[in-house]
This record gives sequence, C-alpha cells and structure tokens, in this order.
Amino acid sequence: MQGNSQQQAYDRGITIFSPDGRLYQVEYAREAVKRGTASVGVRTTDGVVLAADTRVRSPLLERSSVEKLHKIDDHVGIASAGHVADARQLIDFARRDAQVNQLRYEEPIDVESLTKDITDQIQQYTQTGGARPFGVALIVGGIQNGEPRLFETDPSGTPYEWQALAVGGNREDLLSYFEEEYREDLDLDGGIDLALSALAEVGDSEVTPEGVALGTIDVETEQYRQHTDEEIATYLEDVDTEGEEE
Amino acid sequence: MQGNSQQQAYDRGITIFSPDGRLYQVEYAREAVKRGTASVGVRTTDGVVLAADTRVRSPLLERSSVEKLHKIDDHVGIASAGHVADARQLIDFARRDAQVNQLRYEEPIDVESLTKDITDQIQQYTQTGGARPFGVALIVGGIQNGEPRLFETDPSGTPYEWQALAVGGNREDLLSYFEEEYREDLDLDGGIDLALSALAEVGDSEVTPEGVALGTIDVETEQYRQHTDEEIATYLEDVDTEGEEE
Amino acid sequence: MQGNSQQQAYDRGITIFSPDGRLYQVEYAREAVKRGTASVGVRTTDGVVLAADTRVRSPLLERSSVEKLHKIDDHVGIASAGHVADARQLIDFARRDAQVNQLRYEEPIDVESLTKDITDQIQQYTQTGGARPFGVALIVGGIQNGEPRLFETDPSGTPYEWQALAVGGNREDLLSYFEEEYREDLDLDGGIDLALSALAEVGDSEVTPEGVALGTIDVETEQYRQHTDEEIATYLEDVDTEGEEE
Amino acid sequence: MQGNSQQQAYDRGITIFSPDGRLYQVEYAREAVKRGTASVGVRTTDGVVLAADTRVRSPLLERSSVEKLHKIDDHVGIASAGHVADARQLIDFARRDAQVNQLRYEEPIDVESLTKDITDQIQQYTQTGGARPFGVALIVGGIQNGEPRLFETDPSGTPYEWQALAVGGNREDLLSYFEEEYREDLDLDGGIDLALSALAEVGDSEVTPEGVALGTIDVETEQYRQHTDEEIATYLEDVDTEGEEE
Amino acid sequence: MQGNSQQQAYDRGITIFSPDGRLYQVEYAREAVKRGTASVGVRTTDGVVLAADTRVRSPLLERSSVEKLHKIDDHVGIASAGHVADARQLIDFARRDAQVNQLRYEEPIDVESLTKDITDQIQQYTQTGGARPFGVALIVGGIQNGEPRLFETDPSGTPYEWQALAVGGNREDLLSYFEEEYREDLDLDGGIDLALSALAEVGDSEVTPEGVALGTIDVETEQYRQHTDEEIATYLEDVDTEGEEE
Amino acid sequence: MQGNSQQQAYDRGITIFSPDGRLYQVEYAREAVKRGTASVGVRTTDGVVLAADTRVRSPLLERSSVEKLHKIDDHVGIASAGHVADARQLIDFARRDAQVNQLRYEEPIDVESLTKDITDQIQQYTQTGGARPFGVALIVGGIQNGEPRLFETDPSGTPYEWQALAVGGNREDLLSYFEEEYREDLDLDGGIDLALSALAEVGDSEVTPEGVALGTIDVETEQYRQHTDEEIATYLEDVDTEGEEE
Amino acid sequence: MQGNSQQQAYDRGITIFSPDGRLYQVEYAREAVKRGTASVGVRTTDGVVLAADTRVRSPLLERSSVEKLHKIDDHVGIASAGHVADARQLIDFARRDAQVNQLRYEEPIDVESLTKDITDQIQQYTQTGGARPFGVALIVGGIQNGEPRLFETDPSGTPYEWQALAVGGNREDLLSYFEEEYREDLDLDGGIDLALSALAEVGDSEVTPEGVALGTIDVETEQYRQHTDEEIATYLEDVDTEGEEE
Repeated sequence: MQGNSQQQAYDRGITIFSPDGRLYQVEYAREAVKRGTASVGVRTTDGVVLAADTRVRSPLLERSSVEKLHKIDDHVGIASAGHVADARQLIDFARRDAQVNQLRYEEPIDVESLTKDITDQIQQYTQTGGARPFGVALIVGGIQNGEPRLFETDPSGTPYEWQALAVGGNREDLLSYFEEEYREDLDLDGGIDLALSALAEVGDSEVTPEGVALGTIDVETEQYRQHTDEEIATYLEDVDTEGEEE
Repeated sequence: MQGNSQQQAYDRGITIFSPDGRLYQVEYAREAVKRGTASVGVRTTDGVVLAADTRVRSPLLERSSVEKLHKIDDHVGIASAGHVADARQLIDFARRDAQVNQLRYEEPIDVESLTKDITDQIQQYTQTGGARPFGVALIVGGIQNGEPRLFETDPSGTPYEWQALAVGGNREDLLSYFEEEYREDLDLDGGIDLALSALAEVGDSEVTPEGVALGTIDVETEQYRQHTDEEIATYLEDVDTEGEEE
Repeated sequence: MQGNSQQQAYDRGITIFSPDGRLYQVEYAREAVKRGTASVGVRTTDGVVLAADTRVRSPLLERSSVEKLHKIDDHVGIASAGHVADARQLIDFARRDAQVNQLRYEEPIDVESLTKDITDQIQQYTQTGGARPFGVALIVGGIQNGEPRLFETDPSGTPYEWQALAVGGNREDLLSYFEEEYREDLDLDGGIDLALSALAEVGDSEVTPEGVALGTIDVETEQYRQHTDEEIATYLEDVDTEGEEE
Repeated sequence: MQGNSQQQAYDRGITIFSPDGRLYQVEYAREAVKRGTASVGVRTTDGVVLAADTRVRSPLLERSSVEKLHKIDDHVGIASAGHVADARQLIDFARRDAQVNQLRYEEPIDVESLTKDITDQIQQYTQTGGARPFGVALIVGGIQNGEPRLFETDPSGTPYEWQALAVGGNREDLLSYFEEEYREDLDLDGGIDLALSALAEVGDSEVTPEGVALGTIDVETEQYRQHTDEEIATYLEDVDTEGEEE
Repeated sequence: MQGNSQQQAYDRGITIFSPDGRLYQVEYAREAVKRGTASVGVRTTDGVVLAADTRVRSPLLERSSVEKLHKIDDHVGIASAGHVADARQLIDFARRDAQVNQLRYEEPIDVESLTKDITDQIQQYTQTGGARPFGVALIVGGIQNGEPRLFETDPSGTPYEWQALAVGGNREDLLSYFEEEYREDLDLDGGIDLALSALAEVGDSEVTPEGVALGTIDVETEQYRQHTDEEIATYLEDVDTEGEEE
Repeated sequence: MQGNSQQQAYDRGITIFSPDGRLYQVEYAREAVKRGTASVGVRTTDGVVLAADTRVRSPLLERSSVEKLHKIDDHVGIASAGHVADARQLIDFARRDAQVNQLRYEEPIDVESLTKDITDQIQQYTQTGGARPFGVALIVGGIQNGEPRLFETDPSGTPYEWQALAVGGNREDLLSYFEEEYREDLDLDGGIDLALSALAEVGDSEVTPEGVALGTIDVETEQYRQHTDEEIATYLEDVDTEGEEE
Repeated sequence: MQGNSQQQAYDRGITIFSPDGRLYQVEYAREAVKRGTASVGVRTTDGVVLAADTRVRSPLLERSSVEKLHKIDDHVGIASAGHVADARQLIDFARRDAQVNQLRYEEPIDVESLTKDITDQIQQYTQTGGARPFGVALIVGGIQNGEPRLFETDPSGTPYEWQALAVGGNREDLLSYFEEEYREDLDLDGGIDLALSALAEVGDSEVTPEGVALGTIDVETEQYRQHTDEEIATYLEDVDTEGEEE
C-alpha cells in the first residue's frame, strides 16, 4: 500500500477522515498486522483451537519467547498477529480485565464481553489524538456458558465472531482454505487437523512441531491448554501434507 | 467526494470553518457513513420498526456479530450505519445514559431526551480539537408516553425526527422509496413489510432472512424485540418481491 | 467568500489576526450562519415576536424536529440560524444560565444579562485555541421589567439590541424589508403580521403554516408561547400576500 | 498593513519575535483597533471626559446596545475601541477587579492600579501561547485622590497616561487636533466641547446627539455619569461646528 | 537583523537550537531590546546611579507614565529597556520577590540574589515551550552589605555585574563612552554627571530635564530616590554639553 | 539508512504508521543502537555471561565510567548498547522494579517478569506522543528458579529469549559467529571463552583486558559478579586468538 | 555545523531520531557548548583542580560575575562551559540535590551520585517534548571517600569520569595537550600548573590572573576553595610560558 500525494494529505493524523470517509492510519495499522506471521482459530463442536506460525529467524532464539498464543484466563486464550509489543499491551489489558471481572462478580468473564472491552480500548486509539492505533489483530477463543466462542479484534476496534479465521500474513489465502474445508460438525481433533493443515498448505515452507504453537480450550474442562512439541508432532503426522502435491 | 487544493486548505482540522462556512471533517464523516450498509426505520401507528442489511463477506463470519441493531433499554432500540467501532461507543453511551436516567428518576428515559444526549456528545467531537468526529449515523426508535417515536443522529450532532428514514449506503434511493410508499396509517406489520421491501427493492441483491436484521418496539408491550430468522422468513414471503420486475 | 492565497495565510487558526486586523475564522462562521434558513424577531409595544423558516427537505421529516424556536424560560425565547448542532449547545447553555439565576436570586434572569452571558461564552471560542467558533446566530427575545426586549448574538460574541432583525439566509433583504415597514407603534398582532410578511416577501416560495414557526412573549402574561399551525394559518390569511404583486 | 512573505514567516504565532524584534500579532491587533470607530478622552481641571462615536449601521439597531462607554465603578469609566467582544471581556475583568479591591481594602480602586491590572492581563495574551491578543484599546478615566486621571491600554499591554487622547479609527487626526487645541486649564465643560469638536471635526459626517456617547467623572462628586441625548444636544449647540467651513 | 532561509529553519521555535548552537528567538528578543530607548547605570564609591531616556512622542502623553525607572524595594531600583509590557511583568516579579524575602527572612533581599531570581525566571521562557522570551533588558542597582552593586539581566537570562553599562538603543556607543570616561573613584555626583553626559553625547537630540529620568541609591541612606525635574535641570547645567562640539 | 521523500512523509512522528505498516521512528532508534559498540550475552549450563566492548576514545577517560554492564539485583545483570543516557533511564527503571518486587513479595524478581516490565515501559514511548523511543537495546541475564535465563529488549519494546546474542555494532557478524560456535552444553568458563572470542574475532582491533567488561551470574551463588582486569586477562589467554589467522 | 536539507528534515524536533539514529538537537546543543570559552579539570593524587577562561569583553564588566566555577557543597565544585543561563539551572539543581542528600542521609553526597542525578535531569530534556536540551557541559570535581573524583556531563546526559578534561571552546586542542602532559603522579600543585599551562598554551592570547578562575578541592580538608588573583598570579609565574616559543 503506497501513499500517493492525494492520500498523503489525510494519512498522517489519526484524528481526521479522508474526503471519501476513510481512516488511513487505521488502514496502515492493518498493513502492520499483515507484516506479522499468521495465527489461526477454529471453532469446533467441543472446543476452540488456536494455532500460530512461530518459526524464528535464528536457531539461538528461544522459540518459547515468540509469544503468539497467550492464556488470558482458565477458559480463554488469545492468538495474536502483527506488532508484537502492541500485542503485549492488549494481552495485559485482557488479563487485567478478566481478573477484575472475577473479583467483582465472582465468575469468569464472558468471552464476548472480554472481546468488546478490548475493542473499546482499541477504538479509543483511533479517535482521540496523541497516540497511534494498535498495529495488531487478535483471535479471542474460549468457552462461554458451555459453548465454544471465537472472536476477532481488528485495528479499527471492531469485534467479529467467526467459525474459523486467520489474522496476519497470508490471511486471504488461509480464509479461502477455511471456507473450503471447514465443516460445522468438526470435533476438537478435527479442528486441530484443520488449523495445522491450513498453516501447512498456505505457508511457504514445511510446518514442523518447532515452528508452530497450538492451544485449545475444550468444553469439558473449560481449561486453556498449550500443547507440547511432542503432541504437535503427533498431530502433524495426521495432517495430510501430501495434499500440497495435488 | 475528492478534495481539490482549495478544499484541502481547510479540510484537515476539525476546529476550522472553510471560507464558505462548511465543516469539511463533518462532511467526510458523512462519507464514512455512506460506506456502511444501509439501516432503515419506520414509525407506525402501533410501534416502531428497525431493520438493517447484515450480509457478511464470508460464510465463516457469524452474522450475529455484525451488530447493526442494538437494544438500549426495554423501550428503545438503535439501528446504526457507518464506522462500526464508532457506533459501539455511542451505543455504550446511550445504554449508560438510559441506566443513569432510570436510577436517578426511577422512570425510563424519553426517546427524545436520549437522542439529544447522544447528539450533544457527537457535537463535542466536531467543535473541540484533539479528536475526530464520529463516522456513524444512528436511528433511535422507541415508545415515549405511549407514542412511537423515530429519530436520526448524524455526524454533525443534529437530531431529526422522521416517519421513515434510512442511513448508510443507498440512503437517497431508500428515502425516495419511503416517500413514495409510506402511509401514516401503517400498522406494525405494514411497517415491517415496508422496511423489508425497501431493503429488497433498493439493495443490489436478493434479501434473505440471513442477510437482514429486524427489531420492533410496539406500543402495547413497550418492549424492544429482535426477530428470529424464521420470523423474518415469514415476513419476507409477504413482501411483494415481484415488484422489482415491474 | 473564497479564500485567496494571501488570506489563507491567516484564516486557519482562530488564535491569530490577519495583517489588516481581521479574524477570518469568525468571518467564516458568519458564512455558516448564512447557510441556514432565516429567523426573524420583531419588538412591539406589547410583546416580542420570533418567527423562523422551518420548511423541511423531505415530507417524512417531522417538522417539529427542525428546532429553530426555543423556550429558554417562561419569559424568554430564542430563535436561531446556522449550524443546528452548535445552536443546541448555546440553547442548553442559556437554559442552564436562566435556571441558575432563578435558583440563586429567586427571580427570572434579565433578558440583557442572559444575552451577555451567551456572548461571553461565544467570545471565548474566538480567542482561546483548541476549538472553533460557534457557527450560529441567535435572536433572544423576552420581557424584562415589563418591557419587551430583543437581542442578537453573532459568532464574534457581540450583543446587539434591535427593534426588528433577521439572521441566517436572506438577512440583508429581510433587514431592508424591516427598515421600510417597521413602525414603533406596532402591537403584537402587527408584529406577527410584519414577521410573517417579511418571510413571505423575501423567501423564494410561498409561506405555509407548515413551513414557519411562530413564538411570542407578551408583556401581560410574560409567558413564551409557541403558536399552533391553526393559529399561524389564521395569521397568514391576514398577511397581505398580494403585496408581492405590487 | 499587508504581509509580505518575509513577514509571514513570523506573523502567525504569538509566541515568537520576528528577526527585527517585532511582535506581529500585537501589531495586527492594533489594526483591529483601527477598524473600530473612534473613542476619545480629555482630562480637565475638574474632571475627566469620555466620548465615543456610536453611529449605527441600521435605524432598527438600538444605539444603546453599541456599548463603547462603560461604568466600571462609581469613580471610573472606560471608553473602548476595536473588537467589541474582546472589549467586553476586559470591561468584565475591570469591574471584577474594582469590586475585589473594594471588598478587600474597603476603599475604591486607584485608577492607575486598575489600569495596570488590565494591562497585565493583556500582556499575558501576548507572551503565552494558546490564545490571541486582545484586539481592543481602552481609555480609562477616573478620579484618584481628588485628581482627574486618564489612561490608555493598548494591545501590547502597555499603560500610558494622557492629557487627551483618542483610540480607534482616525486616531492620528484626532491626536493632532488635541495637540493643537488642548489647554491645561480647560474645565469640564471646556473638555466636553473639545471632545465633541474633535469628533465633529475629524469624522466624515456630522455629529448628532444620537451618534455620540458622552460620559464624565467630576472631582466634586467623584461619580461617573453618562449624559442623555438632550444634554449632548445642548453641548453640541456650543460646539463651533462652523469651524469646519473655515 | 534579517532572516535568510537557512536561518528561518530554526528561528521560529524557542525550544530548538540552530545547527551552530544558537537560540534565534533569544537573539530576536535582543533586537526587541534595541528597539527601545536607552537606559544607563553607573556604580560609584558612595551609591548607584540609574538614568533613562524618557522622551515622549506626543506633548499630551504624561512623561511620568513612560516608566523606565522602577523602585523595587527601599534599597533597590531597576532601569529597563525594550518591550514595555514585558518589563512590567519582570518588575512585578522583582517586587514580589523582594517582599517575600523581607517577610521570610526579616531582612532586605540581596541585590545579587534578586538579580539571579529574575534571570532564572527569564531563562525558563527560553527553554520551555508555549511562550516567547522576554523582550527586555534590566539594570538592577542597589546597596548590598553597604556596597553599591550594579547588575544587568539580558533576554537569555544571564546575570552580569558592571561598573557602568547601558541597555536598549545606542548600547554600543554608550558603552564605548563609559569605557572611555568611567573612573573607579567617581562619587555619586560624578556618576550622575557621567550618566547624563552619556545620554547627552550619544542621543540624537538635546537632553532636557523633561526627557530624562534619574534615580539614585546612596550607601548612607540605602534609599532609592527618584529625582525631580528641577534637580535634573541643576545636574544638566553641570554636564559639559559643549563636549559635543569638541 | 537514508530517508527518501516518500519515507520522510511518515518518519518524523512516533504516533503514525507508514502506508506499509512500519514505524520509522522505532527503526531509526534501532540505528541508534547500531551506532553503539557491541555487547554480548551467552547462556550456559551453569550460568549466564555478559560481556561488552568498552574501549575508550581517550586514555584520560576512566574506563569504569563507560558503563555497559550493570548489576540490577543480586541475581540479575544487564548489558546495554546504543544511546548511553537512554540506557541509564532503563537501568534505573529496572533497579527500582527489582526493589519494589523484593519489598512487595519478599522474593527476588523473575528475570522474565523484569524483562517484560522493561519492554512495556519501552513500548509506551513508541505509541504515545510527546516523547521519542529509547535508542537502546538491553541484554538481561540472570538466574530464575535455579535456571540461567537470557533476554533481549529492543527499541520496539519486544522481549526475546536467547541462548546467545549480541546487540549494538556488528550485531549481525556476532550473531553469525554465535550460531556457528555455540553449543548447548557449554559451561560458564566455556561461555566466557565464547563471549570473549566473539568480541575478539569480530571487532576491528585486538581485545585487551582494559577494552572489555565481563560479568557473570552462576546458578550456584545466584550472584552477579563483575570480573577484574586480571581475571579477564587470564580468560583472554585462553581465547584462541590465532583463530583470526585461519 | 551547517544543516543541509536532508538533515533539516529531522533536526528541529527533540523527540525524533534521524534515519541514521542521531539526535540532531543534542548535537546542536554540543555546538552551543563549543561557543563558550573553555573550562578544564585535572585530577591529582591529593585533590582536584578546576580552572576556567574568564576573560571579559568589556573592562567595565565585573569579572566575578562571569561565573564559570561554582561551589556546590563543601567537597564539590563544578566548572561549566556553554550557554550561561542554562548552566545556572543545572548548578541550582546540583546545589539542591546536595542539600537534600545531606538532610536525608546526614552525610555529604557522593560526587558520582551527584553527577548521575545531573545527567538524569539533562536526559529528560532530550527525550520528552516541550523543551530544548541544555546547551551546557559541566566538569564535576570533588572528594569521595577520601579520593579525588572528576566527572563530565554532556548535553546528551551521559556521565564520564576523567583524569583530566576540557569542555567548551578549544576542547580538542586542550584534550590533546592533557593527553601529552598529564601524569598520574601529579600532586595538586602540579595539577594547577598543568591546568593553567593548558589554558595558556591553547588560548589565543596571554593568560593573566584576571582572565582565569581557579578552584581546588584537596583530600586533606575536603573543602572547595576558590583562589584569589594573587594566588593565581603566583601560580602563573611557575607556568613555563616560554613553552610556547619552543
């Protein structure tokens, strides 16, 4: 997305609209999201799957420090894509929000309420001057009243609910893959397969257990669980990676 | 709306008038409203009808998360069009305003007072620096003293009362349709038919129960009620969609 | 009023004078007033008349929501012209000001004091940065010590007292009409006739009871009263509309 | 005063000096004063005379609302010229200042102290950012310790004491007239004659009782008194208006 | 001092250095000082002399209101040059500073401490944004521990101590005169002669008692005393004004 | 990194994204880091090694005042590179953070928590206006639950965990060296050798005990220890500096 | 240092980095330091020497008011170079800091802690907007735990410890001189000789007792002492000024 001179007249202040009613700084923040590697989410009949591309640029870099999956509360996890430092701010915000809810109402926060609290926070940074928008998109997954829920927050501060979605690099290709392959009757294992297949199919190189992070929240335990490399390796064996050759 | 160089001298600061007395940033916010899909409102003898185009861009996106109809209080609903994240801020403001009124005066808020509180909030963002105007228009419908009332708030912060109106994309065509077809003696069912017909006539593609949201507040119960897809399907059967072919 | 490049050097900041000592943003706010439809005021021996052009752009728009006449207190009304949302702010300010005066001194506020409180408020927005001037002019009419009083506030924050005046579109033509037709011994009925005649003579189309708002405060009751369409219809019959043909 | 491009580099911010040490915004505020009609002041042996050109642009405009002479306290009056709304702010400031002095020290405020409080207020607006200078000049007249005193405040915030002076339009011509005609042994009546003659001689059209305002404070009563049209008419008869024909 | 385009890149913000480490706004404030008429100070064995050129532009202007010499405390006087309204702010600051010192420590303020308090105040306006520097230079004279002291404050906020100095117009010529004529064993009368001679020699026109102000603080009384026109006339007779003809 | 004109449109405000979603001011802050000399960190089986190039530009400059290694708490040290004064701010922040943790929870702060507190602080300076980002990168090393941990903070505010890393000048070459030479079974002495070898191999001149700083935290004592020149000299003897000649 | 157009894009805001990671306003502040005359410091075995070039531009200017050496506490002195008014702010800060330390801990402040408090203060002005950096460099000398210590603060806010150093004009030449002539076994008298020789060798004109200021703190008394002209004269006799002819 290159700015022309007409566009440049309106794209440097977050507190102004362009003549055709666009908010360029928010659109540029979306570009910052695309610069990050992909994260995906899949909602299944008995839980939610979050997965992220976590390949690192150096073998000396600890993969665990590339934090793209985050436990927010027992029953909620978030996958992020885009500007890492911005994501950390929203993750901290989400954790505090969940804690406050627990303390105040003595019950876990609604996944939907949590998502909307986050998007309200994001929206403030698109309307009031003195700061820039958040260059990050989040996938919020969790169990609410026994049901799996899966939400997206984008840099404009709009919340959306999805059956399956992707944020970050290759989003369009991943969404197309999901639209073709997603079935509503998927169970959690099927969802894990779908999430890993999508990353394998669409990414530029092979997916290895070390290059992917996987988290799930199932309706039975209502517990967010980050999977080990061994577990991921097992799941990857199931993934029909030959599909690429078709 | 493309800015020429004369216009550009005045259109990037919300706190300035142009030489001919216009507020360009407010006009650009109106363009942001036009970028959204349409919402309509119809006032009838026994209630108010709110309806909105809620078609989604992906089959994986949950249609219920495209929030264009919002319950504000038992007796008031709002339909929005334009920048979604901005709309959420005004909806939150409206809900708090209704609650505060209930607590302070122990009676439901006037639909008209509520509308004016919202427009006062909007106006602040067009006169004082440090923020941009809200890129959203609202249709506020409800029952006040047993009478159906239907208001509009626009990005300048002006409140208007209507018999039937549309905001967002295709506003002009929808208003023309209403001006031709609206009759003051419409009952609620007639109003629902008119609202759905308008969306069906003017939109670019067929209206399906999944692509439209419908809310009503009738004078008897004074309760905002969001209709199910099944109910909408029944109503759509009544809509003389053959009209298009005439 | 089109800005040339010399003018543009000074017309975008409210806190600066131009080299010839002008405040361009205040002058542009006056242009915003001219963009509104006209309101008029006439002072008579036994009361004050306020009238306004309230023709609406759509038959579905409730004419009562085009608020150009406003009751401020029992004994004071205001007619406005220009940016509607700005007018609402000053009307709210005036009402609070009248209430505070009543509470503090246990007597109704002076029409003159009220006007000057409003103009002081307006002036602040022309001298201190961070906001734009109000794009609105008001006609403040009321009874003070048993005498009818009629004031104007303009966007610079200057108060003027008039026998008869007009603000908004066609101001110059309406003032000329008043200068020719106004007589100091007019009674309230004569004042109503004069106000309606002026709007009929100068406006581009016929005046109908639905296209005009009329308010009066008489010295006997000291009560602001907004007239019904029926009453306006009766007055309009009296207006010598044939005068146009002379 | 037209700005050239060298000048424009420095004339739009009040918080900067030009390379030759000038404050352009203060100079432009002086131009705003010149755009107003003239006010004059004359100090005599037994009192101070303030007079102002108050001709109005429309016969329907109440001349009394063209406020150019202002009573500040029993013993002090102020004549203003320039931006009317700005003058009102300083007049309000002066009145509050006089009241506070009376309350705190239980004696009337010094004319000189009052003048300096006003100029300190004016100076703030020429050094600190976020606001523009006051576009107004004041003539402060009063009795202090039994002596007539006559001061000027200009837009830079400098106080000057005069025997006779003029501010606003035609200032230079009026000052020349005073320099030629003023005598130190003038009594109050002589001062009134001189003030009215000056306005008559220098203005472009005849001076009538309706087109001039006249206020005096004499050393005997120490009371500011605004003169009636009848009194002014009597004084005008004395003014040797034939002088113009010489 | 005319700004070229290289210079203009750095001379409009007080909070920036130019590439060669200069503060242009401070330098321009020095130009504002040069635009004022001269003030001089002379330190002698038994006191300090302050004198100022106070010629006025109109015979109607009270010379006493051209305040260039100011009593700060019994034992301290200040002579100013430059922007008059700015000088008044610093004079007020100095007086309050002296009073606070007297109240807090029950002894008169040090002339040196007073000077440094003033320069600290001046410096703030050269480093922190939102205001412009003071366009004024002061000569602070007084008695401290029985010794005459004579200081200068400049627009950068630097304090200097002098035997004899000048600020304002003709500063360079006056300093040259002092460097040639000043002797350390001058007594107060000799100092007065030197100060008046300097103004007479260097100014463009004759010095008269009405065109000069003279103040002294002697070590015996430690009292600031402003001299009358008669006293100045007597001193002027002593001044070897024929020197000009040599 | 030279800015072209397209880039310059977006690189001077920290609160804006460029059209391709980049934060130029953060990228320029990374350039500031590269301008500093290198610091390295190595994690070993029984401790963490921090080392830094501390060669000084003048023999008169005390090498100990070139602070690149900092003790934060008994069990944590930080090595810095880039803008020295900025580093000091973050070091102070880290020390206070560690103290507060000790006081509040009566246990030493987690190395990971400390790192994230620092990066949160850094991120604030990249999103909110009115300040610039920190031009510094830190290597945070310490013992946590008996395990050696090694983190990096960069100017965007992102935390990373490493086995071995370098920040500042020559970072890429040093990282390549580590990727080739690092082995997971290194003990502390091996880590010291690796760190010193890297600095010796990659730097432009010979490494002497006076030109390098060395700190370690071992798992046994959990104490940060800065090594003396003598100790460093001994270690340097072990370093196979002939490697350069291969 | 002249700004080219590439540089000008980044050199006027203190809160931005240039594309190559430089802070231009800090570099320009260093130029402001070079515009000042030189100050030097020498650390010896039994004390610290501070000296400064204090030649004045006019014989009437009191040399004692050219304050370049400042006593901060009994055991600490500071020599400054650069913008004088800025130096005064930091000197005041240092004195308050020393007093607070004495009051709070009942012991004299560490020379090193004092230096770092000053540099922290300086750094704030290079990162946060709304003010410019300090255009001054300081040499902080004193006794700490019985040891002589000598520090520098520069406009970036970095603290350095030296054996001998110079700040201000001719810094490079003076440093070269010190690098050649400084010996670690110098005693205080030797240090004084070295400091005066350096100023004599490198300055453009002869050094006289009236043109130099000299302060010392010895380890025995731990007292800062400013030397008299007579003492300086004696020291100057010892200085091998013939060295220049070699």
